[in-house]
Amino acid sequence: MIAKLLLDKKREGHALGSAEIREFIDGFTKGEIPDYQMSAMAMAICCRGMNERETADLTEAMMNSGRSLKWDFPTADKHSTGGVGDKLSFIIQPLAAACGINVPSLTGRGLGLTGGTADKLESIPGLTCSLPLDRFQSVVKEVGLSLALQTDEICPADKKLYALRDVTGTVTSIPLIVGSILSKKFAEGSGTLVFDVKTGRGAFMKTKESAVELATAMVKAAQLSGRKSAALVTDMDSPLGYAVGNANEVKESLDILSRADKGLEDIRDLSVEFAALMVSLTKGISLDDAREMCAEKLADGSALAKFKAMVAAQGGDLDRFARLLEKPTFKFCIQAPKSGYVEDIDAEKVARVAFRLGAGREKAGDRIDPLAGVKLAARIGDKVSTGSALATLESSSEPDGLERNAAELLKAFSIVSGPVVKKSLIIERIS
Amino acid sequence: MIAKLLLDKKREGHALGSAEIREFIDGFTKGEIPDYQMSAMAMAICCRGMNERETADLTEAMMNSGRSLKWDFPTADKHSTGGVGDKLSFIIQPLAAACGINVPSLTGRGLGLTGGTADKLESIPGLTCSLPLDRFQSVVKEVGLSLALQTDEICPADKKLYALRDVTGTVTSIPLIVGSILSKKFAEGSGTLVFDVKTGRGAFMKTKESAVELATAMVKAAQLSGRKSAALVTDMDSPLGYAVGNANEVKESLDILSRADKGLEDIRDLSVEFAALMVSLTKGISLDDAREMCAEKLADGSALAKFKAMVAAQGGDLDRFARLLEKPTFKFCIQAPKSGYVEDIDAEKVARVAFRLGAGREKAGDRIDPLAGVKLAARIGDKVSTGSALATLESSSEPDGLERNAAELLKAFSIVSGPVVKKSLIIERIS
Repeated sequence: MIAKLLLDKKREGHALGSAEIREFIDGFTKGEIPDYQMSAMAMAICCRGMNERETADLTEAMMNSGRSLKWDFPTADKHSTGGVGDKLSFIIQPLAAACGINVPSLTGRGLGLTGGTADKLESIPGLTCSLPLDRFQSVVKEVGLSLALQTDEICPADKKLYALRDVTGTVTSIPLIVGSILSKKFAEGSGTLVFDVKTGRGAFMKTKESAVELATAMVKAAQLSGRKSAALVTDMDSPLGYAVGNANEVKESLDILSRADKGLEDIRDLSVEFAALMVSLTKGISLDDAREMCAEKLADGSALAKFKAMVAAQGGDLDRFARLLEKPTFKFCIQAPKSGYVEDIDAEKVARVAFRLGAGREKAGDRIDPLAGVKLAARIGDKVSTGSALATLESSSEPDGLERNAAELLKAFSIVSGPVVKKSLIIERIS
Repeated sequence: MIAKLLLDKKREGHALGSAEIREFIDGFTKGEIPDYQMSAMAMAICCRGMNERETADLTEAMMNSGRSLKWDFPTADKHSTGGVGDKLSFIIQPLAAACGINVPSLTGRGLGLTGGTADKLESIPGLTCSLPLDRFQSVVKEVGLSLALQTDEICPADKKLYALRDVTGTVTSIPLIVGSILSKKFAEGSGTLVFDVKTGRGAFMKTKESAVELATAMVKAAQLSGRKSAALVTDMDSPLGYAVGNANEVKESLDILSRADKGLEDIRDLSVEFAALMVSLTKGISLDDAREMCAEKLADGSALAKFKAMVAAQGGDLDRFARLLEKPTFKFCIQAPKSGYVEDIDAEKVARVAFRLGAGREKAGDRIDPLAGVKLAARIGDKVSTGSALATLESSSEPDGLERNAAELLKAFSIVSGPVVKKSLIIERIS
């Protein structure tokens, strides 16, 4: 009966009360509110929206459907909406940890074109992100950092609701997206949450406007629930860095952490910016001071040390990883058809090729080839000559449809005659 | 997959194609589209609406979920959205049949405050409205008129959808209401459909605007599906006639059909107007000519004869009905507290009292007391003196809560000192 009244209320465009949202999600989690009422509510939310307070309440209610962690020291995390070549978690999180902040980062597996943080990290031999929650807690306490998969104990309501949204045309709703993303971040217990909301061809949010809307909604929901929060809307029209795949992205992150970041200054600077936001909000110091601290911790090798300690704590072996990268694999190089400057690289096309080479999964449970992916040889602004390398298609063995993939990858590149000015990665700041 | 795409389309406010609507309803009827997708679609329709063509397509699709009848002679029917004391079907339908039009009228049982046509008619001893469809067809052929309950073969999609709408807050949507009402009328095969959309305190549509919207949508959907159609929006602020209940309403109808309609001229004239609309549209003659024909068929007893023939064909015994009405029952008369003119009678309050006396049912399967109800002694505009009768509460045996009901019934009346001008029953004409 209560469900029906709340459905009427939302259908008419009214705001639901905090207790009402709690009761609805609670009833759904327990199976007292059936799928057909939840899907009608999801559609009503899609059509009528939710205000900031309702969104925060929805997020809290989803968090409370399962276990949530508490920490007795300052914690922070960064969440990205996902992009092509997005390996920033392997740099930002260790950097924040090196600044003395604990980073309990629960993450998911990838689905669709862009891979997940856990998939990429698990290309390190021996490493697992499937940690029981108590092991996750002890890694965070010992190392100051853990990147682990969320368990079934975390936000069961989200899992159930997401499956329903997926088949009822209710995925594209800002409050529901915020509820889904943030409930898991709330459950990991981070006191500071910084968001990287990507926009462009390779992102979930295709337009700047929708990305700003999502970023604002996430920051507001986190703040209304008593967390410190900020977001950067960043460019995802072109891939981040040279590497798109799994093992190659971890390798590129290690390069940046080791200061071998030639040509990757933009990624390094963006990582410092995110880590500085986390540090500034958590420690209550100025952003400039936080930037300086982060730059120092990157330069003195502390961030790399944190990353290595986290890998070791989660069973990973970096020596075996180095040997894996030296394994003979299939490589196919595409070349510039003319001389000039790289004006554009279409992230979506690059992602599609990497996906078809084996770097992503179509459905849950599919196997990923850790060595599959695309390695760019030129980035936007780079000068190329006819026949010089643009990118390499890589995989463990010769892939199907090589010609088609090579042709599509070539189409991802635009080459112009005059020099090209690189755009800033940061499009908008939200706090 | 198709369901998900159509959900996306409707969520974004786009119109669905004819084949798409057919496919969705068909899949739902067969159980291939689960409840959670149908309820999300119902909510999307509530929020985004449907245009006239979509509404007609939805109605046709629902009709085609079950059996639909075809006739090889002209047929017409009138449908009312339901009101307090609404016995017009017992006058209009026989009147149209007396004019040579066949009236295959499938109807439902009542639920809530206002009773259903079948419930009222079945207060005639022996009469049944539960006819198999082939018996219904032969009564229509023999008598020219049958008022019967829809069977399970008619519009199974509507039954399934209505149950779902009832629990998902998706009852109040014009296209869904039209689809539900009209699919059953389409299935009975009437070539002309005339609608009585009631508005006011005693009606489903409380405001004139919503009633006009519903009436227009019904007429358009019927016309777009190749039927002739018109509607009158009529007043339901106060009860129709003196009798509110079951047996007493049938008795009042018989009085009007027998021209013993003193004080009921408004009901008689409205009935003639509706029957004339049916005749005019079906025969293609002017409304004035049709009015004249109907008035004649009422005056010469032909309409009464049609009603009696239909009652006999469905097993009813009017002699036993007359004896039933003479049975000693519990009666309690309320009196005017002051002298003056009746300015207003609140239909909803009267209905609530009749309902509590046993004239209606709360849930499907509840028993109705055919002798329970309210008999007004004064109507709007009538002059009353202190202590003169206003109304009688009636039921088979002394009811519970008599004092409360008598007090509420008294509150339904407003008495003013000066004379009162009666409003016209017809508020708007739609064609």
